[in-house]
Amino acid sequence: MRRVAIIGAGMTKFGERWEQGFRELVVEAGVRALTDAGVSGDRIGAGYIGTMASGSLVGQEHVGGLIADYMGLTPIPITRVEGACASGSLALRQGFVDVASGMHDIVVVGGAEKMTDLGVSAVSDILGGAGDQEWELFLGATFPGIYALMARRHMNDFGTTEEMLASVSVKNHSNGAKNKYAQFPREVTMEQVLASKMIADPLKVLDCSPITDGAAGLVLAPLDMAESFTKKPVEIIASAQASDSLALHSRKTLTGLRAAQVAAEKAYEMAGATPKDIDFAEVHDCFTIAEIMAIEDLGFFPKGQGGPASLEGRTKMGGEIPVNTSGGLKACGHPVGATGIKQAAEVTWQLRGDAGERQVKDAHIGLSHNVGGSGATAVVHIFRNQ
Amino acid sequence: MRRVAIIGAGMTKFGERWEQGFRELVVEAGVRALTDAGVSGDRIGAGYIGTMASGSLVGQEHVGGLIADYMGLTPIPITRVEGACASGSLALRQGFVDVASGMHDIVVVGGAEKMTDLGVSAVSDILGGAGDQEWELFLGATFPGIYALMARRHMNDFGTTEEMLASVSVKNHSNGAKNKYAQFPREVTMEQVLASKMIADPLKVLDCSPITDGAAGLVLAPLDMAESFTKKPVEIIASAQASDSLALHSRKTLTGLRAAQVAAEKAYEMAGATPKDIDFAEVHDCFTIAEIMAIEDLGFFPKGQGGPASLEGRTKMGGEIPVNTSGGLKACGHPVGATGIKQAAEVTWQLRGDAGERQVKDAHIGLSHNVGGSGATAVVHIFRNQ
Repeated sequence: MRRVAIIGAGMTKFGERWEQGFRELVVEAGVRALTDAGVSGDRIGAGYIGTMASGSLVGQEHVGGLIADYMGLTPIPITRVEGACASGSLALRQGFVDVASGMHDIVVVGGAEKMTDLGVSAVSDILGGAGDQEWELFLGATFPGIYALMARRHMNDFGTTEEMLASVSVKNHSNGAKNKYAQFPREVTMEQVLASKMIADPLKVLDCSPITDGAAGLVLAPLDMAESFTKKPVEIIASAQASDSLALHSRKTLTGLRAAQVAAEKAYEMAGATPKDIDFAEVHDCFTIAEIMAIEDLGFFPKGQGGPASLEGRTKMGGEIPVNTSGGLKACGHPVGATGIKQAAEVTWQLRGDAGERQVKDAHIGLSHNVGGSGATAVVHIFRNQ
Repeated sequence: MRRVAIIGAGMTKFGERWEQGFRELVVEAGVRALTDAGVSGDRIGAGYIGTMASGSLVGQEHVGGLIADYMGLTPIPITRVEGACASGSLALRQGFVDVASGMHDIVVVGGAEKMTDLGVSAVSDILGGAGDQEWELFLGATFPGIYALMARRHMNDFGTTEEMLASVSVKNHSNGAKNKYAQFPREVTMEQVLASKMIADPLKVLDCSPITDGAAGLVLAPLDMAESFTKKPVEIIASAQASDSLALHSRKTLTGLRAAQVAAEKAYEMAGATPKDIDFAEVHDCFTIAEIMAIEDLGFFPKGQGGPASLEGRTKMGGEIPVNTSGGLKACGHPVGATGIKQAAEVTWQLRGDAGERQVKDAHIGLSHNVGGSGATAVVHIFRNQ
């Protein structure tokens, strides 16, 4: 297996992008990634695109063909992958395997979702398809409710408080305020989060990631070819994926995601690293409780200590392990299929020293953690600069 | 890259499977494939599932997680891939890369679609998402109309006749009558096809593949491990994929699919083979014209000669190159995501000598050709027995 590097990254502004369709967003992000890599289309061997629900959201399946067409890349193979909210990281993972195996040299990977063309209620139903349609969605369980169950159990078992949850939102908005691509680049206070409208007790609207349009792209190459494109290649030193039951009712615990724990364990093994080696991380904060579980599942803090660690500022910029320097799903927005690629783009910029006001000092090893639905899929990647 | 073999195959009966849901169909096919391979779940490293539109058809995205769950395979990674009607072959291709690269040893791949829970009109709209939503579907172009355009042009340029089209249907129903898994295992006559109801001139209902529920699965292993599971491993000697523009209006020709031509060329190169080396093939006959274009695009007959070749019986059982011994999409039915895997299962059974009444004599090298939508994705695999 060859060593694999990211040689280019790009993304669109995340938000309500009513002037652009799905395909325009993909092209915008894709062209930025290719331009960043300085690679021409004729060098590209294959592509992967992560999108969860373009069929239901905009009536368009077959987005691999669409993108080959609109990016001017035909006849190269482009394949769509889907793992709900982890679709982007699955695209990255398949691209990684293609390059590592020698199947292709230059591979472009992306993620995209166009979510704001429908009303909130329709979108909530469609997103519910990331859970168990027969046992959860059909009975009315949409995602705020599912994560609220996990939050309540975490509060019961470990004493996690609403303030601890809120502290995640405050931190991520503080980081996102420095990110020009973020949907909500503004700070919020603890008081504002606690006073915001209740969605699914104990989760308030400012505990929840928003509905968003956006796309992101990366260009991958074998590490030994990467230096002909960029002076700052970022190596992917681990790519790991795991699964769990789709419905919560089949799980042994609600206070952590087994798929994330298994993926993390495999990723650390592949990278020859431990949680202590990670300088910063982008994690899947679709709800504030999800970030608290993530920093525990990844081994940054013992199970049950994620809440206090967040409240104490240990995951802030300048803290012992900065988490979601991009602003996370909370402030950047969560165009479902794009999120995993956006996370990897943020890690890339951090490891190249290109993160501007958000720059983590002495960043050498970064991690991304991307979860599908309530955790039936989880993907962990670890990255290192050269 | 390691050599890769199919060590097990299984499928459900195709048809209107109103008693089973999506997940039950996948489990039925998956268990048959695993049983055929004699492999236990704990040996499996990863899985891929091809499905086009489960979100729109049954409200369920995240089918990788669903299948890991219902097949009892958690926490192994299972990833959904989508390329419209070529989704199944994309799953096979990703599994092939996983095994060839050494990423995993035993990989299970499958395809499934549950299509008959909605009315025909709704399903036609959803299938239209395999074409260009903005430039075709939005304006009313569903697939019978799109393929009718191709048929008319082929008739204009090459003198292809309605009888030539009909002969494909007659042949495939003759083959499908011997297949217990087929949705319509019965013969039809030339007169019946020509007298059947017009759908989109010149395509009549008996020129069209039906709407179908079904699933199929395969188990892959490195060739050098395959003999510990089966005495009759079938090697995958080529896997190639290509893309084309999504909308017909951007193409230079309507009488052939460039993506299929490019994929075939790459596949022959990878296999070190020519069209003359292929003993039989499963091709994508979503409409009768599609099979005629396929046997030309694959180089079995010169462009324009597919119609006469079909009418003359050169693609029949016992002809110079038997095509669609399974009955094809026409007689077997076309549960979109399952079709590519079903094609590979048929080729596997033929190459093992297990095809019963449908057995091709002296079958040594077989080919599968799977097309997404109107040809924005095409995938060609070539298989050989040992």
